[in-house]
Order: sequence, then C-alpha cells, then structure tokens
Amino acid sequence: MAAETGKDNDIREYADLTPIMKPSGVAIIGASRNPDKVGHVIMQNYIDVGYSGRLYPVNLNDEGNIMGFKAYSSISAIKRPVDLAVIAIPAKGVPKALEECGKAKVKGAIVVSGGFAEIGERQLQEELVEISRKYRMPVMGPNCLGVMDMRSRVDTLFLPTFKIDKPGIGGVSFASQSGAVGSSVLDMIAQEGFGIASFISYGNAAVVDEVDILDYLMRDKHTKVIVFYMEGVKRGKEFIEVARKVTKIKPVVIMKGGITEEGAKAASSHTASMAGSHEAYEAVFRQFGFTEAEGIGDMLNFAKILDTQPGTTGKRIAIITNGGGTGVLATDALYKNGLEIARLSKGSEAVLKKAMPPIVNVRMPLDMAGDADDVRFDKAISTISSDPNVDALMVIALFQTPGADSRVAAKLISYNAAAAKPMVVVSPGGSYTEVHKKMMESSGVPVYESPEDAARSLRALIDYYTYRGYNGKKNR
Amino acid sequence: MAAETGKDNDIREYADLTPIMKPSGVAIIGASRNPDKVGHVIMQNYIDVGYSGRLYPVNLNDEGNIMGFKAYSSISAIKRPVDLAVIAIPAKGVPKALEECGKAKVKGAIVVSGGFAEIGERQLQEELVEISRKYRMPVMGPNCLGVMDMRSRVDTLFLPTFKIDKPGIGGVSFASQSGAVGSSVLDMIAQEGFGIASFISYGNAAVVDEVDILDYLMRDKHTKVIVFYMEGVKRGKEFIEVARKVTKIKPVVIMKGGITEEGAKAASSHTASMAGSHEAYEAVFRQFGFTEAEGIGDMLNFAKILDTQPGTTGKRIAIITNGGGTGVLATDALYKNGLEIARLSKGSEAVLKKAMPPIVNVRMPLDMAGDADDVRFDKAISTISSDPNVDALMVIALFQTPGADSRVAAKLISYNAAAAKPMVVVSPGGSYTEVHKKMMESSGVPVYESPEDAARSLRALIDYYTYRGYNGKKNR
Repeated sequence: MAAETGKDNDIREYADLTPIMKPSGVAIIGASRNPDKVGHVIMQNYIDVGYSGRLYPVNLNDEGNIMGFKAYSSISAIKRPVDLAVIAIPAKGVPKALEECGKAKVKGAIVVSGGFAEIGERQLQEELVEISRKYRMPVMGPNCLGVMDMRSRVDTLFLPTFKIDKPGIGGVSFASQSGAVGSSVLDMIAQEGFGIASFISYGNAAVVDEVDILDYLMRDKHTKVIVFYMEGVKRGKEFIEVARKVTKIKPVVIMKGGITEEGAKAASSHTASMAGSHEAYEAVFRQFGFTEAEGIGDMLNFAKILDTQPGTTGKRIAIITNGGGTGVLATDALYKNGLEIARLSKGSEAVLKKAMPPIVNVRMPLDMAGDADDVRFDKAISTISSDPNVDALMVIALFQTPGADSRVAAKLISYNAAAAKPMVVVSPGGSYTEVHKKMMESSGVPVYESPEDAARSLRALIDYYTYRGYNGKKNR
Repeated sequence: MAAETGKDNDIREYADLTPIMKPSGVAIIGASRNPDKVGHVIMQNYIDVGYSGRLYPVNLNDEGNIMGFKAYSSISAIKRPVDLAVIAIPAKGVPKALEECGKAKVKGAIVVSGGFAEIGERQLQEELVEISRKYRMPVMGPNCLGVMDMRSRVDTLFLPTFKIDKPGIGGVSFASQSGAVGSSVLDMIAQEGFGIASFISYGNAAVVDEVDILDYLMRDKHTKVIVFYMEGVKRGKEFIEVARKVTKIKPVVIMKGGITEEGAKAASSHTASMAGSHEAYEAVFRQFGFTEAEGIGDMLNFAKILDTQPGTTGKRIAIITNGGGTGVLATDALYKNGLEIARLSKGSEAVLKKAMPPIVNVRMPLDMAGDADDVRFDKAISTISSDPNVDALMVIALFQTPGADSRVAAKLISYNAAAAKPMVVVSPGGSYTEVHKKMMESSGVPVYESPEDAARSLRALIDYYTYRGYNGKKNR
C-alpha cells in the first residue's frame, strides 16, 4: 500500500477525477431557494443543462423541497450513493461538511467557496487536505468554479447564465487555475463557435492539482486537445512524469501566468501559487512538446487548429485568396513564422490556368480576385490540396467581396470534412462575416481573424507534429 | 511654373484630394440600372448614405433616368460644375472618359476599374497619368475601392451593403492600398464599434499616392489618427518630407505589406508596388515616430487608443480587475511590453482599504473580486486615477462575473470622458460582453480582448508621445 509512503503518493493515488467529472449522483451542499446564493445558481445549472443522474440538494435549515427536488439536512441523510458533493457554503463551515462527505463515502468533492489560502487562511485549507487524505476522497478547489462536462452534463459554474455563452460539444478540454480566465475564455470559445469536451476550474489546487488534471484529461477519450491555464506547478517531479507521456498521446496548449517577476508575485497572492522561474517552465514545456500560448488569443487559436486538423510536419503552405492585399500579408506572416509558401507543380498550374479566368495570375499566393465564387474556390482548393508540393492550405475568404457567400463557406466545410491536409481559413470582418465564421467553426473549420493568427497557428500545429515524429499516418 | 520642372513636382502640385473627398458635385461614369454593375452599387451607396451634393449618373447608352436621377450620355453634357468623377467602366474605355473629364474641368477623379498595371497593362495606366498631368486633375486608382468620407458623405465603395458593416463617425482615417485589406478592416472597425473620419482605398497609386494621402490627412481637421496599409512608397524623398511633419501633428499607425522577400514579390504582382527593403522602411518609420503595426489586430488596437486617449510618457500602469487570473496575465503583459506596474501612494492605499471589502487585498494588481459592482469600480478608479504614482490605467472588467453589468460599463464611459490619464479596458467574452464592449467603444473607450493587446497598445501610445516629447499639456 502506498498510503504510508508519503503525502505525494497518497494524493497521487486517490486523485482520480472520474467521480467529479462523471458522477452518477450529485449533492449540492448549500443548495438554496434564494436566487442570490451560489447553491441556487448551481442547482439551476444542473436543471438547465439536463444532468441525467440524481440530484440531492443539501441545506441544514431547509428540509422541504428545493427547486423541485427533495432537500436533505445533511449528506448522511441521503442514504443513497453520492459520487460528487459540490460544496457552496461559507469557508469556515467547509471542513465539517467535507468530513460528513467522507463519512458518507462520497467519492469526490468540489469546494467552490473562497476564503482559504488565497486570503492567507492556510490552516483552514490544510484541514481540507487532511480530510481529503483521511477519506481518500479527491477534493477540487477551494476557490474555484468547478467543472463542466459536456457528456455527463455536470455543470457547477455559478455564473449568471445570461452573462456567459456556453460552448457546444467538441474535442477541447480546458483547465484553468483561474476562474476569471476560465470563464472569460469559455465565453470566447462559445462566441467563436467551436466546441469543448470539458472545462475544469481548479482554484487553489489544495488537493486536486495540475498533475491530476493532466493525467485525467490524457486518459479521457473525449478530449482531443488539452488547454491549460496554470499559475504554478505544485509537484514538479510528478508533473514531468505526466508531461513526458501526455504529448505523445494528444497536444497540450499551455499558458502560464506569472512568467515575469511581478506577474509571479501577483499569482502568489491570487491562488497562493509558487510560480517559479519561467525559464525552468519553458525548458520543460519545450522539452516535452507542449504548445506554449503567449496570450489568451493564442490559447483559442492553437486549440482549434489542433482539435480539428490532421497532422503535418511540412512547412510548404499554399495561400488561396479572394483579396490580393490579404495574400501579401499572409505571405509575410508565413515567413515571419518560419514557414514558406508552396510552389505549385506544373500539373496544378496547368489545371488552374484552364479553370481560372484570364485576370487571375496563376502563382502563389493565388489571388482569385474579388468576384471569386464557390466554384472558383472549389476548383482552386481541390487542385491545390492534391498537389504533392503542398503541405497545408491557408484559404483567405473575404466575405465583403461580391463573390463570397454561404456557398463558399459550405464548400470550405465540405472540403475540411474530407481533408487529408491541414487547412486554416482567414475571414476578418463584421456581422455578415461573423455569421459565416460561426457556421464554419461549428463544423470544425478553424477560422482566424488575420493571416498572422492563422500562420502562427499553423506553426504551432507543425511544431507539435514535428515533436511527435509524425510520419503522415492518420492521427485522428 | 512648376509644370515644366519635372514629373514629380507636377504631381505634387495638383494632387490635392479635397475635390475627391469633399466634392460638391459628383458624376458616376458607368452608372447603371443593372444591379450587377459596379456603377449601380456606387449610385445606391450615394443614395443610401444621403450624399448632400448633386449626383449625375453618366451612361453612354442610357439618357433617361437612372435610379431617380437624370442621366447624361457624357460628362460634357452635364453643363454644371462637377468636382468629382467616379469612373466605373471597363479599363480600355477609361482613358477616353478621363480625357472628357479633363476637358469638362472636373476637379478630381477616382478610377475604380481594374485591368491596369496590376495585370501588366502598364501602358494603359501610363495614359491615365498623362491625362491627369495634362489637366492637372488628381486621379485616384485605378484598381481601387475609392473613398468614404463621413462628413461629405461621399461613398464609392462598391461592395454589397449587406456584406459590410460601416463604422460611425470618429477620429480615425484609414488609407489602404489594398481594397481587400481596406474593406475587411473597415468591417472589423464597425464591428468593434469605434468610428472613422474617412476611408481611402487608393489601389495602383498611378497618380494619387501615399505622399498625397498622408499630406491630405495631416491637414484634415477631422482626422485625429491616420492608419495606413501600404505596399510600397513611390516617392521616397517626398514621403520623408511629409513623414517628418505629420507625426508632430497626429499619430500615424502604419502597416507595411511585403516586408519579407516573398511578401514583396506578392505585393509587386498585386498593386505593382516596389516594396523595397523592410529595413529601410523600418528605419524611416522609427526615425519619424510612426507607430508600426505588425498585423491587422495591431492596426485596430493602436488606432483606437491613439484616437481616444490623452497622451503620457509615463510607464507606471495601475491594474484594476474583477478577476485575479486576468490580473496576473495583465501584470505579465506589462513587463513583456517594457512597462511596469504602478505602486500606489500610501494615501490611495488608505482610501482603498476603507472603501473595499475585507476580502480585497489592497495592492497592485487590485483584485476587487468577482462580486465587484459599479460602486467598487468607481471607488477604485477615482482613487487610483488621481494618484500621482500612476500614469495610466488598465481596467479589467469581466462581464461574466455576478457584479459586472451595464452600470460598470456606464461608469467606465463617464470616467473616460473626463479622464486626464489614459485608460484601456480589457473585456474578453461572448455575446453579453460584446454588447457592453460596443456600448463602451462607441463612447470612446478603447476595449481589448486580452491584457496582451491592451498592454501592447498602451506601449504604442507611450512610445508615440515620447517621440513627440510630450510634456503633459493637453493634446486633444
């Protein structure tokens, strides 16, 4: 038994997140009829998203019926198996509630309440750790938003639902130590239109930490790409152990908060994280093939290309555009990112010369002119994508032009669904463009606001598959 | 007379853009009842935006009435003063039409038609230059979208109106050699919600070029910030002459296409521009205090801070946030951009300690917690903005949180209207956030998607005012 061999092993052993992410019975401790209470919002979430397991509101003072569910005065009163307890009560009552969960053989807990190490209450937080260890019950938080799983329909995010858009189902799992970064990025993901597998906000990481989450998401079959915002790593050795394995299985986009000295100080007062030297982190990230995001934009941009596109290690990118100037910018963007423009084969050139109107100069970037319609896009993409001199495609579809409309978007979607080579789409614009962008994103086409973002994302994809030693075999 | 002293002086002398930008009579050559024709779309634009001057459709084959306006078979048949002729007919007919304009003493022309130097028809383009010189009539284009002026209501953009959002009135004038880059960025500006003074798409720059446009916008009293996308400069000496003056009067955000060798080749086949070495351009841009944009995002981000915010040369930035993690990222972003976090005075600290609830740790970044409402934002901003240790403010308003709503946005708007120090707002998110972002942007608050964009834009502002030798006097 590892139980006696030290704290790290202890935690390692019991921090399986399955009961938290895929529970078959959930107790909400602090559930309330009062809509201002966090426990009310969480109940409402469960009801709204249609959680299919059993739901047990727990409230010391309220044994009647809360929001249509029979309420209990304590977890021990439930008398049925509870996989997950979500604890949303003031900090000082949390240890007692957690102790009761342990006694009632609850399999995992999320403490959303704040008021622990992040405001100096380290002792109170230590009590949670002790209880978690005693009952071998993984505890997420405290000071977190908890989790959202798109299949089990668990959703503990206690944010007003009209203020945050929730994404559809996709392959990206997003873990964020910060609830603020987590919820705002989740909202942005929904706005963009791509989907997620799960979301985890883990706060102070008193028990369940980066290592557990990375390990869990590595094994989760619905997760194709892991995106991580972290402010520090508590268990360096174990982190490296998981890091060594995970990127061989799936890509990990990582954004580290506190990479500057002052940022690290801010992180320490935020989630009580020891940020450590950025150089050390960067060295680890690079060594194990993590995809490092330098900003919120990178996180989203990298996640969607890695989720939706096949692998490649080749750097020869074909640019197909319906606007000349954007083609110029795209060419610059490729070279600034260490990529290069593809040289079409003689065969493709001959086909395109026949297919394109005389005004189109058949060269790279291929400027098909402002009147290019779905037929011209189709001809260009089908010819160029099968050219052996081309490793990936950047298609610039400007929806302001007379020729581009929903048929062009539909063509890009159908090409993308069958594609053997990676493709990114660039569509900067306003409301008409947004509609088409969302149409494409929700069908798995990664769409970017600028050629710079698209080139940077292609580079991230190529770097990842180069690290993997990708040999052209199907990877998804 | 300069007329005989050489081509450059010639062009310099007559390239005043006033008749093009603020015409009192406009002829549309190629006006048509057929909605597929460019001349129809331009007519419709003029009607839609409510151009207040006289409008004269010209069509060789159609002397009746076009879209409610009496049509003419030629420009000479109009017999009234025409300031601007917009020419939208096939390329080979353009020289004749332009010659007629010259004879009829038209003061300026825009040739929107393509089919000139950009496809190798250099001789045909040279004919336009000759006619322009002969009649001392400035000609914009060919191969361009033309112009949009928010006061004169001139609008020659022949793009389907449902495909492109048009911005409101503001202080940014945006000139783009590329119609594609121009129209997509215009659409993005409208989507963001900030306004423009004018838009110029100048295409092949056969006559009216970068120098003329920069010179015109420098003098235009409605233009507070110039944003320029260019693929090359035709007259280096004259460009430097204007460059030397312009940034002492107003900021110029510049994006150069064709900065890599391959990008330059693409630019050459696009607008027949000689891109030249990027090092040379960069040296000039830096020497004369231009604000260089490295991507489409930068162009928009820099434009709005320079348009709306007062000057500063100080680098001490106060961060006020309702989400801890975003505050950590903001701190990192400051230092990555060579800025620093402000240290509050003892006085401000004391005031804030009283004003904030106990859970708020009064330090920088100031994390006011997720329940921060307009009152808490107000107290923090009013205290911190008057602290002598603070040069500028970065306010992170996450609208996913329970406390943030339209009142917080209203508070930021009213603070911004009266502010003596620059402020940027960071609000990443989806639809609820977008509504508030637009509300703020349209009232002159620069709102960013990420702390990285906000810090980068603050840096651009500080660099510009440092170049100007700004001494704290009111600059707007």
